[in-house]
Amino acid sequence: MLSEVRLRRWLREVRDGRRTVTAVVEDLKRLPTDHVGFARLDTHRRLRRGLPEVIFCEGKTPAQIIRLVQRFRRARELTLLTRLDPIVARLVQHRVPVVRYDPAARLGWWVPSGRLRRRGLVAVVSAGTADLPVAEEAALTAELLGSRAARLYDIGVAGLHRVLSEFALLQRARAIVVVAGMEGALASVVAGLARSPVVAVPTSVGYGAHFAGIAPLLTMLNSCVPGVGVVNIDNGFGAGYLAHLINTAG
Amino acid sequence: MLSEVRLRRWLREVRDGRRTVTAVVEDLKRLPTDHVGFARLDTHRRLRRGLPEVIFCEGKTPAQIIRLVQRFRRARELTLLTRLDPIVARLVQHRVPVVRYDPAARLGWWVPSGRLRRRGLVAVVSAGTADLPVAEEAALTAELLGSRAARLYDIGVAGLHRVLSEFALLQRARAIVVVAGMEGALASVVAGLARSPVVAVPTSVGYGAHFAGIAPLLTMLNSCVPGVGVVNIDNGFGAGYLAHLINTAG
Amino acid sequence: MLSEVRLRRWLREVRDGRRTVTAVVEDLKRLPTDHVGFARLDTHRRLRRGLPEVIFCEGKTPAQIIRLVQRFRRARELTLLTRLDPIVARLVQHRVPVVRYDPAARLGWWVPSGRLRRRGLVAVVSAGTADLPVAEEAALTAELLGSRAARLYDIGVAGLHRVLSEFALLQRARAIVVVAGMEGALASVVAGLARSPVVAVPTSVGYGAHFAGIAPLLTMLNSCVPGVGVVNIDNGFGAGYLAHLINTAG
Amino acid sequence: MLSEVRLRRWLREVRDGRRTVTAVVEDLKRLPTDHVGFARLDTHRRLRRGLPEVIFCEGKTPAQIIRLVQRFRRARELTLLTRLDPIVARLVQHRVPVVRYDPAARLGWWVPSGRLRRRGLVAVVSAGTADLPVAEEAALTAELLGSRAARLYDIGVAGLHRVLSEFALLQRARAIVVVAGMEGALASVVAGLARSPVVAVPTSVGYGAHFAGIAPLLTMLNSCVPGVGVVNIDNGFGAGYLAHLINTAG
Amino acid sequence: MLSEVRLRRWLREVRDGRRTVTAVVEDLKRLPTDHVGFARLDTHRRLRRGLPEVIFCEGKTPAQIIRLVQRFRRARELTLLTRLDPIVARLVQHRVPVVRYDPAARLGWWVPSGRLRRRGLVAVVSAGTADLPVAEEAALTAELLGSRAARLYDIGVAGLHRVLSEFALLQRARAIVVVAGMEGALASVVAGLARSPVVAVPTSVGYGAHFAGIAPLLTMLNSCVPGVGVVNIDNGFGAGYLAHLINTAG
Amino acid sequence: MLSEVRLRRWLREVRDGRRTVTAVVEDLKRLPTDHVGFARLDTHRRLRRGLPEVIFCEGKTPAQIIRLVQRFRRARELTLLTRLDPIVARLVQHRVPVVRYDPAARLGWWVPSGRLRRRGLVAVVSAGTADLPVAEEAALTAELLGSRAARLYDIGVAGLHRVLSEFALLQRARAIVVVAGMEGALASVVAGLARSPVVAVPTSVGYGAHFAGIAPLLTMLNSCVPGVGVVNIDNGFGAGYLAHLINTAG
Amino acid sequence: MLSEVRLRRWLREVRDGRRTVTAVVEDLKRLPTDHVGFARLDTHRRLRRGLPEVIFCEGKTPAQIIRLVQRFRRARELTLLTRLDPIVARLVQHRVPVVRYDPAARLGWWVPSGRLRRRGLVAVVSAGTADLPVAEEAALTAELLGSRAARLYDIGVAGLHRVLSEFALLQRARAIVVVAGMEGALASVVAGLARSPVVAVPTSVGYGAHFAGIAPLLTMLNSCVPGVGVVNIDNGFGAGYLAHLINTAG
Amino acid sequence: MLSEVRLRRWLREVRDGRRTVTAVVEDLKRLPTDHVGFARLDTHRRLRRGLPEVIFCEGKTPAQIIRLVQRFRRARELTLLTRLDPIVARLVQHRVPVVRYDPAARLGWWVPSGRLRRRGLVAVVSAGTADLPVAEEAALTAELLGSRAARLYDIGVAGLHRVLSEFALLQRARAIVVVAGMEGALASVVAGLARSPVVAVPTSVGYGAHFAGIAPLLTMLNSCVPGVGVVNIDNGFGAGYLAHLINTAG
Repeated sequence: MLSEVRLRRWLREVRDGRRTVTAVVEDLKRLPTDHVGFARLDTHRRLRRGLPEVIFCEGKTPAQIIRLVQRFRRARELTLLTRLDPIVARLVQHRVPVVRYDPAARLGWWVPSGRLRRRGLVAVVSAGTADLPVAEEAALTAELLGSRAARLYDIGVAGLHRVLSEFALLQRARAIVVVAGMEGALASVVAGLARSPVVAVPTSVGYGAHFAGIAPLLTMLNSCVPGVGVVNIDNGFGAGYLAHLINTAG
Repeated sequence: MLSEVRLRRWLREVRDGRRTVTAVVEDLKRLPTDHVGFARLDTHRRLRRGLPEVIFCEGKTPAQIIRLVQRFRRARELTLLTRLDPIVARLVQHRVPVVRYDPAARLGWWVPSGRLRRRGLVAVVSAGTADLPVAEEAALTAELLGSRAARLYDIGVAGLHRVLSEFALLQRARAIVVVAGMEGALASVVAGLARSPVVAVPTSVGYGAHFAGIAPLLTMLNSCVPGVGVVNIDNGFGAGYLAHLINTAG
Repeated sequence: MLSEVRLRRWLREVRDGRRTVTAVVEDLKRLPTDHVGFARLDTHRRLRRGLPEVIFCEGKTPAQIIRLVQRFRRARELTLLTRLDPIVARLVQHRVPVVRYDPAARLGWWVPSGRLRRRGLVAVVSAGTADLPVAEEAALTAELLGSRAARLYDIGVAGLHRVLSEFALLQRARAIVVVAGMEGALASVVAGLARSPVVAVPTSVGYGAHFAGIAPLLTMLNSCVPGVGVVNIDNGFGAGYLAHLINTAG
Repeated sequence: MLSEVRLRRWLREVRDGRRTVTAVVEDLKRLPTDHVGFARLDTHRRLRRGLPEVIFCEGKTPAQIIRLVQRFRRARELTLLTRLDPIVARLVQHRVPVVRYDPAARLGWWVPSGRLRRRGLVAVVSAGTADLPVAEEAALTAELLGSRAARLYDIGVAGLHRVLSEFALLQRARAIVVVAGMEGALASVVAGLARSPVVAVPTSVGYGAHFAGIAPLLTMLNSCVPGVGVVNIDNGFGAGYLAHLINTAG
Repeated sequence: MLSEVRLRRWLREVRDGRRTVTAVVEDLKRLPTDHVGFARLDTHRRLRRGLPEVIFCEGKTPAQIIRLVQRFRRARELTLLTRLDPIVARLVQHRVPVVRYDPAARLGWWVPSGRLRRRGLVAVVSAGTADLPVAEEAALTAELLGSRAARLYDIGVAGLHRVLSEFALLQRARAIVVVAGMEGALASVVAGLARSPVVAVPTSVGYGAHFAGIAPLLTMLNSCVPGVGVVNIDNGFGAGYLAHLINTAG
Repeated sequence: MLSEVRLRRWLREVRDGRRTVTAVVEDLKRLPTDHVGFARLDTHRRLRRGLPEVIFCEGKTPAQIIRLVQRFRRARELTLLTRLDPIVARLVQHRVPVVRYDPAARLGWWVPSGRLRRRGLVAVVSAGTADLPVAEEAALTAELLGSRAARLYDIGVAGLHRVLSEFALLQRARAIVVVAGMEGALASVVAGLARSPVVAVPTSVGYGAHFAGIAPLLTMLNSCVPGVGVVNIDNGFGAGYLAHLINTAG
Repeated sequence: MLSEVRLRRWLREVRDGRRTVTAVVEDLKRLPTDHVGFARLDTHRRLRRGLPEVIFCEGKTPAQIIRLVQRFRRARELTLLTRLDPIVARLVQHRVPVVRYDPAARLGWWVPSGRLRRRGLVAVVSAGTADLPVAEEAALTAELLGSRAARLYDIGVAGLHRVLSEFALLQRARAIVVVAGMEGALASVVAGLARSPVVAVPTSVGYGAHFAGIAPLLTMLNSCVPGVGVVNIDNGFGAGYLAHLINTAG
Repeated sequence: MLSEVRLRRWLREVRDGRRTVTAVVEDLKRLPTDHVGFARLDTHRRLRRGLPEVIFCEGKTPAQIIRLVQRFRRARELTLLTRLDPIVARLVQHRVPVVRYDPAARLGWWVPSGRLRRRGLVAVVSAGTADLPVAEEAALTAELLGSRAARLYDIGVAGLHRVLSEFALLQRARAIVVVAGMEGALASVVAGLARSPVVAVPTSVGYGAHFAGIAPLLTMLNSCVPGVGVVNIDNGFGAGYLAHLINTAG
């Protein structure tokens, strides 16, 4: 790699007395900017953040996605494709058949080394049937990154007993994702019963004064129960990612 | 009353043959507009709506309020003064000592005929201590209009058992007012447990992305539980009024 | 049912001296959460709220809807399908021919025991032709739940006499639904003439600074006439449901 | 006036043969920009728009206001001071005692030539007591500019007969200003009864989901009755000005 | 008409001594509500407002529109169809061939008595090519109602000379409609040059922080030049209607 | 405790054959609601959530706060008073001198058993001097609940080196709180460098199009870096609480 | 040109004594308005602003666009067609084959005199792949107007080293365009590293609480780093234009 | 400075053969993060951005501000204090008497080396008297950073001739700041006349639907004239800073 080559050359020049210490110091002062050429895109992210980069597919052409997938695969790195359109998914799978795809979660992936070992427990709770795609995106993301995930779907506040009946599991999970559209009250109700951090995901499921997710977003941000962190509307991936980080933080 | 006098005169003129039927028909055609002089302000409202007019005090001078109170009192009509400032209340009481005042609810009133008979049951549920003034305004309004009111305060979703423990009373009430700030999830939770209509009042209690009540307002409008009617932010009076109408509808 | 079985077993164990009172007390302490297994989804809702669950069809697949309808039908429970797409409706009717469908209201239903007995009177008032679907959803919902409904359509504030001419009927109704788009002023005008609670439904009918229903929503929340409860934009079902609750509250 | 002096000099130079036509043409080509020096601030506005400039006092120091008043007075021009604080008004009156002031409308003025002749009829309708300052600002503005104004105050939609009883006067006015806070429905109701243009002024009177005037602003912009032009929230001056223009347009 | 028949019968009964004056007074007291049956929909609007009702076509079925057109035509009343879709227009014209249609303005019409006489002058000014449909809707509406209209199109503030060059015409018009999208600054610029009332129409032409017309709407409501009345976004019809009222007010 | 007493009585009645199993089953079916009387307010929250209730002081009177503090103290429970006004704090300390108070964080507290043992590491990063109160509230909260906290203040994106120089510490923390006003970009920048979950707190520090915190709130919700959970604007307490939960989750 | 002809005639009339100085002065007083007829549309813009008019294609018909292109071409003026739809572009190219088109930037153009000479340096930095069209529109615009442009794409804050590694180029550019969707933090980060003005372009790339560009728009307006000027959401053309002005300002 | 000392030591160790090149390369790989200790706060900003850091005073205590001023002064660096309260200014001046203060612009400053040399020309245009403080903050900032500034105040679009009369000066300026409240149309009008970049500053001067600056902010972002960069509401400092950058960019 060029930059390291250059650095080694400078150091050898110092060692060999061909350049003064002061001259190299001056060059190195500029390092905060150009020195980063050391880092290669993929590997550094994993080193720094513990997890690889993820490919957000919206706005990318199939060709661009396929090229990225092939690069990840060559690096034998976990490949996660979020917001992947079903039709594009088929094109990708046509070219890279090992890629798997979940149409509900709109998630594609390739796991390099056979079966993942999964740790801890992330509970993914969702209110209505229409919230399922976002919930499934969260659960699958957490699983692919290395967490165990329990799915508690169709648990709305209209019938509290449905929430209460899952009390034991909620207490056991090390991170809980709550996915809710409509008024989003489920996040507060679940957080009031849990001991672990709650990641709340408002969904755009609703109509009228729901404003495509603003209503549950505000509900979750204003929760009277502490211990709730909110991610963007419909951001199942982000919730699964954050829940995995929490689950494996210890 | 002048208009009635005039109408009677016209009819007598017809009866006595002094005016033709056609001429009077022409005059009467304009009645939809000027005929309403029949109705006297106070009495007609009670006849039409079953309840007297209410005096909204914000933006009125003490002198204006006192004059209105005296006019109501002369008519021996129930007098309700909403959003009455404590200092203005003292001025009003100085001039009309029979007026009573509740500083928490910022409500003043005078009930003409001794003790009210109260019917039915309105339950007023509130979440936090800071929501109390609005809840009290709702409860007191319902009582002054003629409903019995039960106060269930400090019942938040952070501890669901507090709501659940009042299940029996909620089932018995003929109308339920839910007053909640923060995320306002209480309305959905209560409605899920109740058989009667729920009047939801968002309050401005909160901060940040609460937007002075927009958060619980949206929560309540988007409730996944049907049977909830929403009134304006902090509108305890309106909620008590509507709950009384529902309570006594039968 | 399993949980009840278990409870009976515990009690028999106590009765028979096989377990101590203290041991069972400990188990029962956890009941607020897992005890609810008693309740079966469908029947408990009717017991608790007096009305069955309703199937919100948006975001559900035809297969999911059909399965739910069949479950309701087996339980011989009133089946209400809201926001049911016409094409999906046909699929449902193909499989469950007894289901009826109103395309204007986008409402599907099956009533178990022949003809409904209807009580009281809900008046459904609407302003413009374009508001009709929402109004019809409200009227039909109220009727299917057991209320009588009177439809007063095409009554706008542009010609007040049209409202005034229905004064008698408005006075007679025990609950009034006002459906209005554009500026939504009709709710205030009707409430000023009525003695019963008004359920106001803003519609998304309008353009420009109407913001798909925000304009009439704010109008209705800020009504200078008390006695108005507001539901979400275009929520004809919720309005009909709430009006039915009010109508039958007595 | 300097610029005119210069122009006349140029023309005389042309007339007298001291400058060529071409040279003056070149100078005049720059006229769109610097030619306007002809116009003196005050007089040109009256020529162009038919009415003098108005002094908006918010954000101006008392000294600045006094200097402007004195300049207007020297020019014997109608002087209108809008949004004039009572305390500042006193300072102005101390220095220029002929200035008159209405504290309700927060309007100061000086009329040069004795008594104004007033033409036509502007009706100013307002809903609640708290809307009075804005209504009075509109009425006074229209009068000072030269219109006759009729004040129809405390006419709310809660009691329609109050509006209907003024039908005749509304029909007679050549321009109608409707001032309303809360839900602002009055504008539609009045426009439905009138034959003249309606200038609608939303006020900030309200609370909660009123958003300091947004609710009636949207109501008025979405009026289902055509013939309504809306001005800014609380802009009584602008409404009176526009109504005067309409009233005297013919 | 029934109601009038009934009224005449009552009066004859009084005349003939068959009913007492008091009995009829009691019946007439209820008149503000049921008396309005006198008025026939179409004719009363023209009597009251000076202009006929207008048919807003959005949300109406072709069948409903055709029926209304035929009713208007039978009454030989000016027929205005706003927001008429081109495809629906063809269906209407197929059934009622005398109806004319302007696809740019999305306006259909039928004028009963040959050629209209047009009075006064309404100037319609617009900024960009994309604003033309709204401008044309305004101009055509004003013309069909009986005003003369001058079209000043493609006059933006980017080149002020284009506005300035039409100064004479702007001064001559009795009402000016300004149609502008983007930032909507044209309304202020034109109002600063005009002596007549300006009706400002924001359009939804723009992108990004334009918010489909909110940007020019706010610009126009906040104009630093008085004499501007604003109508809803894209409401060319409303602007033309209001401008016609102003133009013919005198 | 009464309820437990009653339960034991029922069970003894079963044991002693005085009541049938069926009768007690019926009574127990109602348990989900009234059974919760078992739970005492304070102790159950700690059991269920692992942390005690916290006293939100805004909207509570000093007397109410003092009473709550005394109740917590009697229960020897950690007492946290958030959003405690300095003047009210003094009143509280006057009555309960052991209460400590931090005026910057507006936090009061009493820790029952001498010195807390602190675990793990929460890093609290803040951008500007004006964000300090919120940051300090977060840090102090985390510490009082039992986390170690490192404060990295005055680290803005205007000088990236300031963030980069704390890379090692950011990598070591098990949870990171980022407090930022203005545009709030710091959250993304920090999350890009961290391996632990980031709790982002937007603050109301800013002006103009900042909208009292909406700008950084949206920034944080839309972060292009996953692993960020957002809490309400200025909610330092909530951030510290959530970070503590994450820090101690393992 | 007519106006100049007329002016010369007036002056000659003065010179020849056929008109008085006063009469011409009166005519000239009106000059600020009608005098601008001197300026011809196209040429004056270039003279005044240094750059020709640009054709915004949205809302224009293909025929209108083609006519404009032909007029520009005849005037041998640089022709820039923004927001040009690919299908319309083909129609235009069919008729005017010299027009070139970039589908990513949706930009069409024709440069009159062969190859442009380009000056200075505009750096266009963009965050994500989906922001490319807007970035390319900016870069191409700057180039077509006469600037050199350097493209630094796919540089997001998730990996700061990518920004830092371009430090030298950022320091060298005379104007920098930053194009960013999502949270838009890149603008602050780049401005913190640059010495030249930064033109920030928020894009509509994002979802949920992104509100089609409002999130990055607010981020950029609130940047804690001075030296940033913001243009409308997705306004790549405007950014390239402004950057070119800055680049060539000296 | 420590870090540089350490670096020199490493290099000397390499030079002297005490450490291998590889070992030092490994240490240097971590440089992007901890290497930045080289940079001292004040001096690096000037090197990197060409201008020193600026002290934003809102939210800082007087003591903090005084300490910063003294540090800047010791470094003999230009000291700019923005949003400095008059009372705090006096405290600062009491301790550091050389600091100068402009109360209108709320700006404090200390210029190290006597009189500044000023280059180029920044024109600051403002619409109303109330916008003066923001305009003055912009003008003064530009001057203190080293630009010449021309003030063109009280130039509103209500009288276009006032803008037009300054055409020559606007053409001459290398950067133009337009400060405008109300509807903010001035930015478009000025940009249409200028050849240089326009920095537009919306102000919070206005009321009602002005929303404290949102109206002119949207106006400016949507300007139909290209070449406008917008800064935050009331951000005179930011505008002056950006205009200075543009003015001196060449």
